[in-house]
Amino acid sequence: MSVHEISARSKQAFYTLSASDLIVRNHFLLNLAEELIRNKNEIFSANQSDFVRAKEEGLSAPLLKRLIFDENKLLQIQDSLHSLALLPDPLNKTVFCHEISPGLKLYRVTCAIGVIGIIFESRPDALIQIASLAIKSGNSALLKGGHEAAETNQQLILSIQSALKKSGLPVDSAQLLHSREDVNEMLKEERNIDLLIPRGSNQFVRYLMNNTHIPVLGHSDGICHVYVDSEAKMETALKVALDSKIQNLSVCNAEETLLVHEAIAQEFIPRFEQLLKENHVEIRGDGKTREIINCKKASEEDWATEYLDAILSIRVVNSLQQAIDHINLYGSHHTDCIITENSQNASIFMNEVDSSSVYQNVSTRFADGFVYGFGAEVGIATGKLHARGPMGLDGLVTYKYKLIGHGQTMAEVKSGKIQYTHKVISENCPL
Amino acid sequence: MSVHEISARSKQAFYTLSASDLIVRNHFLLNLAEELIRNKNEIFSANQSDFVRAKEEGLSAPLLKRLIFDENKLLQIQDSLHSLALLPDPLNKTVFCHEISPGLKLYRVTCAIGVIGIIFESRPDALIQIASLAIKSGNSALLKGGHEAAETNQQLILSIQSALKKSGLPVDSAQLLHSREDVNEMLKEERNIDLLIPRGSNQFVRYLMNNTHIPVLGHSDGICHVYVDSEAKMETALKVALDSKIQNLSVCNAEETLLVHEAIAQEFIPRFEQLLKENHVEIRGDGKTREIINCKKASEEDWATEYLDAILSIRVVNSLQQAIDHINLYGSHHTDCIITENSQNASIFMNEVDSSSVYQNVSTRFADGFVYGFGAEVGIATGKLHARGPMGLDGLVTYKYKLIGHGQTMAEVKSGKIQYTHKVISENCPL
Repeated sequence: MSVHEISARSKQAFYTLSASDLIVRNHFLLNLAEELIRNKNEIFSANQSDFVRAKEEGLSAPLLKRLIFDENKLLQIQDSLHSLALLPDPLNKTVFCHEISPGLKLYRVTCAIGVIGIIFESRPDALIQIASLAIKSGNSALLKGGHEAAETNQQLILSIQSALKKSGLPVDSAQLLHSREDVNEMLKEERNIDLLIPRGSNQFVRYLMNNTHIPVLGHSDGICHVYVDSEAKMETALKVALDSKIQNLSVCNAEETLLVHEAIAQEFIPRFEQLLKENHVEIRGDGKTREIINCKKASEEDWATEYLDAILSIRVVNSLQQAIDHINLYGSHHTDCIITENSQNASIFMNEVDSSSVYQNVSTRFADGFVYGFGAEVGIATGKLHARGPMGLDGLVTYKYKLIGHGQTMAEVKSGKIQYTHKVISENCPL
Repeated sequence: MSVHEISARSKQAFYTLSASDLIVRNHFLLNLAEELIRNKNEIFSANQSDFVRAKEEGLSAPLLKRLIFDENKLLQIQDSLHSLALLPDPLNKTVFCHEISPGLKLYRVTCAIGVIGIIFESRPDALIQIASLAIKSGNSALLKGGHEAAETNQQLILSIQSALKKSGLPVDSAQLLHSREDVNEMLKEERNIDLLIPRGSNQFVRYLMNNTHIPVLGHSDGICHVYVDSEAKMETALKVALDSKIQNLSVCNAEETLLVHEAIAQEFIPRFEQLLKENHVEIRGDGKTREIINCKKASEEDWATEYLDAILSIRVVNSLQQAIDHINLYGSHHTDCIITENSQNASIFMNEVDSSSVYQNVSTRFADGFVYGFGAEVGIATGKLHARGPMGLDGLVTYKYKLIGHGQTMAEVKSGKIQYTHKVISENCPL
């Protein structure tokens, strides 16, 4: 089958899937949990074969590790499928209900988006996570996995499709694409694919955006900041600034730049330097930092760099405003934290920093869909439109307006026979 | 000043504007209403000069009519500025508040998007409408108006900037660009401009999308349908199907295709043909329609055509499902209506038709931001992401996550010291 035919089938499946009851979609999740256990030997053996081949092909150790799908991963997936089944229906929620004029009611109701094309990397468990979020939210999933995990993915999609069948949902609600050429074919399917969610490098996301008319919600890089305010508690500052940097060096929510208010810099920076040394983190400081400690000089480029490594840039600022300006200029609108006991300073920081997640006194590492209680996450959205930050079920739905009358015409409005009342009936009434 | 400098100033203004109080933003709206009256002679005379020049340049009569800015328009604008001032603040609304773990609270809060670039056509009153919506929602407006209205727009922006100044808001919150070359410069400002909203042809919107990395929310064309169900009330069907077609032929929410259930076609179509004849509307019918009345044959192309003219295509369908499939295949996801007294049929239609507005027993002409009670409208969004259908204040905001703790680290989560509670504190609590 061509990618065009596959996409058209996804769209057809979407119409049925999106109109299905929550019970049926939850049944699918529970059936999938069972199917994965039933097929686990086939899945593990396919994964073994992927692993051996990837190793021969010289895949790096961290990526090899992410490729593994074992009993442990299976247990995690069972957990996450069960939690997902417990989450409320993201569909058919009446957001508001207004009376336009007597007898004419307007409802804004959530609904599924359509066909979601997802291009993901080596981790085969991501396939289950993404497909289950898509189907819970009434969207067809068109999945393109990594070459390294090809055999595992093939086994997983069989389990998904078998669970779809058992639940009475269209089997085409989840389909797997295989080759790199398939991606280029996907990009042309703007009639059938409603949204692309790539997981990959910024460069890859940009390539997609430049070569398709389908909207792309990009997975974000992160230049995250911790700002130690003049009214920070020293212990909190040391603890949070350290965790944000070293708890995991290679993730998008790790701290890359530390900003320190000058009133606290003399005390804070030498103590923090000690902690960084113990954890083998290199410091690159601005002029004022280098007056306090010995370290490499930070260049203009450092402020705009996502190291994803054991390096931290440090700048001493003379005010809260300078910290905010620095973050808005050099940051990537991902996650930025203020350490302060002053709630007014916290409020100014959190309102004026133009990032999707803004924190007070907590590690930037908390920026994650599971941590936020979304059950799981499809990705982290870079942009400001539609969905922002960690994207769960909520990022996979849109809304439609439903207007119910009994023969009202615009001619009657123009003649004055119908007059607008624009009365709020309820912010949350069932349709 | 270059477009780059102007955009950077817009961004700077946004930081102040978006952090301003509702009272200040509402003051701006009332001040603007006063300024326009104070400057009305200058505005009318500029408009007179635009009108004379446009007429000499051969602008068509309907466009000339839209160019007029007179006492009447001014009165309408006063009304709309006053209503806009009465609408609640779209900013800083806490959408939800969850406890992640004891002492760690996550808030999702609405906030402004940033700098909105708006490219609009001849109507100079659109400038006021769009700029006032943008500023009420805390966004800077970068406006590019039509050449025909250049002098009027220049006067209007002076009134806006003077009102901004009087309200203590940054004057750069609203700026006007002039030339066609400015548009191409705008497209490069992805660092400063967060969203583009063009009003214009589909072709123009597509050109913008192909030439910028800035997200574009397009103003939609409409292939709107009325479906007369087997359980329609005859009088309602005749009245609504006629109003949807003829009340205004050249608008995006006018009906272009009528679908009729075969059980009612024999009675309905001849009666409706009579009404269309009286209103000089040409019919193009499918085979079954042509068995009932004499009319031109509808081609495959007709079903996918937005006539914006006194032409209507008619198809007889054998089921509700066939009507839904037709609309999903040929429609433009704008506004589609079912005429029926059967609420189950209505519910299936309204759930399965994949359009931004779905109606029961009411003219498609009601698809409009003012009619929906949004105060005014920035445009009608074609896509399914972010905003859909008529876009008011709500379409001009996004959200951010605010997380407030007291030193929580991810290391403490990994060691089991912190456990997630994921408790819903409130769906709507103040921060």
